[in-house]
Amino acid sequence: MQASSGSRVFLWCALALCSAMLASPASTAIPSPDVKDRPPNIVVIFADDLGYGDLGSYGHPTIRTPRLDRMAAEGIRFTQFYAAASVCTPSRAALLTGRLPIRSGMSSDRRRVLFPDSGGGLPAEEITLARALKEKGYATAAIGKWHLGHLEPFQPRRHGFDYYYGIPYSNDMDRVNDERVPSGRAAFQDPKVEYWNVPLMRNETIIERPADQTTITRRYTEEAIRFIERNRDQPFFVYLPHTMPHVPLFRSPDFEDVSARGLYGDVIEEIDWSTGQLLDALERLDLDRNTIVWFTSDNGPWLTFNEQGGSAGLLREGKGSTWEGGMRVPGIARWPGRIPAGTVSLDVASTMDIFTTSLKLADVPVPDDRIIDGVDLRAVLFGTGKGPRDTMFFYRGPRLMAVRHGSWKAHFITQPAYGDEGPETHDPPRLFHLDHDPSEQHDRSTEHPDVLAEIKQLVEQHRTDLKAPPSQLEIPLAGRSQ
Amino acid sequence: MQASSGSRVFLWCALALCSAMLASPASTAIPSPDVKDRPPNIVVIFADDLGYGDLGSYGHPTIRTPRLDRMAAEGIRFTQFYAAASVCTPSRAALLTGRLPIRSGMSSDRRRVLFPDSGGGLPAEEITLARALKEKGYATAAIGKWHLGHLEPFQPRRHGFDYYYGIPYSNDMDRVNDERVPSGRAAFQDPKVEYWNVPLMRNETIIERPADQTTITRRYTEEAIRFIERNRDQPFFVYLPHTMPHVPLFRSPDFEDVSARGLYGDVIEEIDWSTGQLLDALERLDLDRNTIVWFTSDNGPWLTFNEQGGSAGLLREGKGSTWEGGMRVPGIARWPGRIPAGTVSLDVASTMDIFTTSLKLADVPVPDDRIIDGVDLRAVLFGTGKGPRDTMFFYRGPRLMAVRHGSWKAHFITQPAYGDEGPETHDPPRLFHLDHDPSEQHDRSTEHPDVLAEIKQLVEQHRTDLKAPPSQLEIPLAGRSQ
Repeated sequence: MQASSGSRVFLWCALALCSAMLASPASTAIPSPDVKDRPPNIVVIFADDLGYGDLGSYGHPTIRTPRLDRMAAEGIRFTQFYAAASVCTPSRAALLTGRLPIRSGMSSDRRRVLFPDSGGGLPAEEITLARALKEKGYATAAIGKWHLGHLEPFQPRRHGFDYYYGIPYSNDMDRVNDERVPSGRAAFQDPKVEYWNVPLMRNETIIERPADQTTITRRYTEEAIRFIERNRDQPFFVYLPHTMPHVPLFRSPDFEDVSARGLYGDVIEEIDWSTGQLLDALERLDLDRNTIVWFTSDNGPWLTFNEQGGSAGLLREGKGSTWEGGMRVPGIARWPGRIPAGTVSLDVASTMDIFTTSLKLADVPVPDDRIIDGVDLRAVLFGTGKGPRDTMFFYRGPRLMAVRHGSWKAHFITQPAYGDEGPETHDPPRLFHLDHDPSEQHDRSTEHPDVLAEIKQLVEQHRTDLKAPPSQLEIPLAGRSQ
Repeated sequence: MQASSGSRVFLWCALALCSAMLASPASTAIPSPDVKDRPPNIVVIFADDLGYGDLGSYGHPTIRTPRLDRMAAEGIRFTQFYAAASVCTPSRAALLTGRLPIRSGMSSDRRRVLFPDSGGGLPAEEITLARALKEKGYATAAIGKWHLGHLEPFQPRRHGFDYYYGIPYSNDMDRVNDERVPSGRAAFQDPKVEYWNVPLMRNETIIERPADQTTITRRYTEEAIRFIERNRDQPFFVYLPHTMPHVPLFRSPDFEDVSARGLYGDVIEEIDWSTGQLLDALERLDLDRNTIVWFTSDNGPWLTFNEQGGSAGLLREGKGSTWEGGMRVPGIARWPGRIPAGTVSLDVASTMDIFTTSLKLADVPVPDDRIIDGVDLRAVLFGTGKGPRDTMFFYRGPRLMAVRHGSWKAHFITQPAYGDEGPETHDPPRLFHLDHDPSEQHDRSTEHPDVLAEIKQLVEQHRTDLKAPPSQLEIPLAGRSQ
């Protein structure tokens, strides 16, 4: 068959369409030039107490997370991604500042997180990712659980966020002291909204109390999408720290009994749905090719809550612990056209690196008047090189418990995640090869004094320039003693 | 622009090509009609001691298995797939006969597997999948570790296989008793071929001794592909029970130090490569759309071998145990055009079901003169319905230790996987909800006497029709006493 010149043009069009569909089946429209030239939008979805093993793509047998798995398949999935602390408050501080929590006063020996009776919070002199991005005109929103100080000087809008919607601290705080509320752990087994008096805020105003937690994941999602719709013509940063799957567990009626994993699975599957809604909205608004979306968690699963807690997969221990299960978490990023689809990265990376990488992407200078612990992950994301992170410090409050350097992790001190049992010091430190032995089962300290010596030197160096300001977590509310 | 009629034809062709590319990028040729009408080819790849958590798609952080992960993405990945025993010999017997090993005499209280000094093997009256498929003219090959009796009456060619290439028992048996061989576990740390005297056989002939285990995975792969090439014009069944990753661990020079996971990872990554080679060969020979390929493992990881053993992921315990980590294994099947791509199945399934499903696919009657424990998985594979398996029995030798029924698993007896510690009987049995609690951490027996009563009734029923012939595993070689 001989094609006329007209048919050749048509053939070319059809094949171009075809190759566009192959490259990106869902996105056909082309962003307008001004969208392409501006710095990328940044979305950080931050689950609460979701464990390393809780997603389908990280090996959970009965929790279905098709949208997160697809996000991973379309982008990059990190297998050695760390939160910077094993509990909420310090982990959040580190993500937003790119700094170990001890540098910002967000850790303590006496209290591991902020409580409703706390008077402290993230100090004003800390530079959050939101504040730094304002320099480039980003619209910024925090939608979800804050937990970096509920008093006004510490609230999101004092830290560079234009908009806030969410709860100020964990959803299990502010428990109602009332005979209708089952005592102890029983309240979590069949949780009811009225057992907790947690407030829902819009900016500085309480708009609902107790917050209706059954619809909170859905409402965060809707708020985030509305914010993106309102700000689609400028670069934006959306920080979405979900309230869930921190206990008490709630999900909206659409997700009741959908998961084989039970209530905990329902909650994760609603977060999966939420992530899908956000990705779909970005595509619908033709923003997905100019937006990097992250998904991770603030710490490992709260194992002491049994079936109401998640899974760290093959990792040892969970939330509250400096064993891997306490701090290694899922880490997924998607940016069509920039991050090669289907990447699985073994590079060591951390939530703190989201800070530094975001500033590099937005062409904002990384603060040079203080120590920043985040590193630039662009080479890993774009597949152009190895990750620059060779060390990870594992703190519990102000105490350095363990250090990962390359493949090796040395535990100087271990301690059960919860309970009264005190710390145990190890000399020599316990040593595990995390690439060979991710479950930290086989102590190899006696074989490798050289590795231990190197790590000890790193610790000395780290301590030389460590300035730990007074803890914010120990400050009581004015007029109250703790 | 107005298209002429000629250009419309061209456009149609281009779009048809485009949609074909989208549907199946790698396969463009169409099988000849006779290939389409004959029963499907069946390939079963059976790893040795590979744990539930040892593949990328099952959550391992540092072992890379891109070809197995792609196989799963192009087919079905089971998350609740069981071997029928926690050690080699009985597990293999069950896969090939579709029957619990206790029904074929392939279990014992005194010896858990066959050894070089064993005189028994899979009885002649057992019907293997190979023998059953001969009825429809299948060409059949067993390539790999047999371990169902090394004496001639029990060898693969007496059990329906046209061709055999491999080792007769485990690669750690026949250890050389020599001062050059390090004692105890030390021989496995830096294994050398000459430490073991294991024979390599072609049909009934020993062709190499000791078998060069460094190239054994590669040579099995080449043998399997050659067999397929030779038999491409008739239906074939290839059973490929790898020698690896059973200790001692060996891999070919191309896979030395390729894996971040160390030696164990190298071995798994060579098996991944091997699987990719087989799938590529099927595509090249234009057979892939008429071939179902399975990948699974004979039991969980051998945890007592530390870094030389694998990982059961989030599951409890490993090889030798009736906790989940001993018997739940990866289960993947691929059949382009028949099994919907990207299926993740939570249906309970077993290696024994490969027997029954294969016979159904080949239109061979399932034997009705004996109890067959396998069920027909076609509905699960093709996405047309739920799996029919509601019960799984967990035997250790002749002793029924635990039963899964629906989501619940009751442990009547538990026992450490290895060592001298005896069995511990539980009354009430320990009860776990495996969908909610796959790690078997939270005993719920006191809450659910109803579930326990139902399971006890199932056990009584099971025992009514149970005929256990004398154990083959206790028969010594003629002229030897055990």
